Amino acid sequence: MVQTPTEESAPLPKVPIPTLERLTTYLRCLVDLGASDVHTISSAQIEQYTSISAAQFRKDLSYFGEFGKPGVGYQVAELEARIARILQIHKLQPILLIGAGNLGMALAAYPGLTEHKFRIVALFDSDPNKIGKRVHGMDIIDFNRMGEINIALQAQMAILAVPTSAAQAAADCAIQSGVRALLNFAPTALKVPPGVVVRHVSFLQELAVLSYHLTETEKRGQ
Amino acid sequence: MVQTPTEESAPLPKVPIPTLERLTTYLRCLVDLGASDVHTISSAQIEQYTSISAAQFRKDLSYFGEFGKPGVGYQVAELEARIARILQIHKLQPILLIGAGNLGMALAAYPGLTEHKFRIVALFDSDPNKIGKRVHGMDIIDFNRMGEINIALQAQMAILAVPTSAAQAAADCAIQSGVRALLNFAPTALKVPPGVVVRHVSFLQELAVLSYHLTETEKRGQ
Repeated sequence: MVQTPTEESAPLPKVPIPTLERLTTYLRCLVDLGASDVHTISSAQIEQYTSISAAQFRKDLSYFGEFGKPGVGYQVAELEARIARILQIHKLQPILLIGAGNLGMALAAYPGLTEHKFRIVALFDSDPNKIGKRVHGMDIIDFNRMGEINIALQAQMAILAVPTSAAQAAADCAIQSGVRALLNFAPTALKVPPGVVVRHVSFLQELAVLSYHLTETEKRGQ
Repeated sequence: MVQTPTEESAPLPKVPIPTLERLTTYLRCLVDLGASDVHTISSAQIEQYTSISAAQFRKDLSYFGEFGKPGVGYQVAELEARIARILQIHKLQPILLIGAGNLGMALAAYPGLTEHKFRIVALFDSDPNKIGKRVHGMDIIDFNRMGEINIALQAQMAILAVPTSAAQAAADCAIQSGVRALLNFAPTALKVPPGVVVRHVSFLQELAVLSYHLTETEKRGQ
């Protein structure tokens, strides 16, 4: 069953989820600006780059203390480092990828993962025809060896890119292997113990939202 | 640049995006219940099935008028039909899929699309080695023929499963071909004219949110 992530994730965060999502947008913008040798930036410029309002930007940052100086703006490098630290992506975050089908392969090759210090450190599948094959510099490992393998890797995050029917078993196996955060691509809810957080990536939800907008814009004659 | 969808989509919806997203969860639940011969359901049962609170469920429905009867609950089939109508997924919604790489292939095979009456009606790519090949019952069509092909198909939605460097060109081409709603998988912002809506599927945002939660639960000693 498709499920909104916030209700499933325990415990509830103090910071709103949309704020955390926008932080990644600011971070991306700051990385780009830093690469273009821009050293300071105003909230108005952030708005120009990200299409997120200057007021929203300041409100989002306010959850995490004082940032920037009135009349001067924000130091690009400092703000980038602080946001990365807030999101805990200032250090390398190892991830187990479960499922070596089309989606798994697409994720393994997805640009931007390494840019944000996410690194897929192992790739698992249950298909004997896939196990042992090498893709994107990684061997496809037998699903049943996840616990053993993760003793060395110590990954706390896993991406589930498996069919719906296999999602709960994959989640259980990952959790038993020490994983405490799951990104689930299967359109199904997962039962997880307290302290384990789940986020869903649902194309269906996004398509339904687009479908609604299409009708709304039609009604308004646009 | 990764960008939150709400800021980019114009015009702003009257109904909150999270409400629309949760509607798809309720819908999925109702479809499952209907298949199990359940005919009426209470908001408390919806909470049990979806992990979304009964109060939130009633609030979400309140945007769209009167639903259910006090003390009786909701007719499963009627509620299902009404939500599908709200999301405009009670009728078939044709979709153009742009990009026949791993991600495009995963999307073409994604379960649940047809269940929600989304149908991928054409698959495009720019790679001469892919054009003309047949996958999932569809021929991969030359990207440059999109306008011509969509005269017959009349699709208003497109999914962009292309590399970042190709995303804007793919969006432009889709819009010129009559598309007014885009689901973008590339981690980049798109410039679109008024009346065209864009939603982004960003794995990076989800991973960053998980990363934050991991740290929070560590702090609380869970």
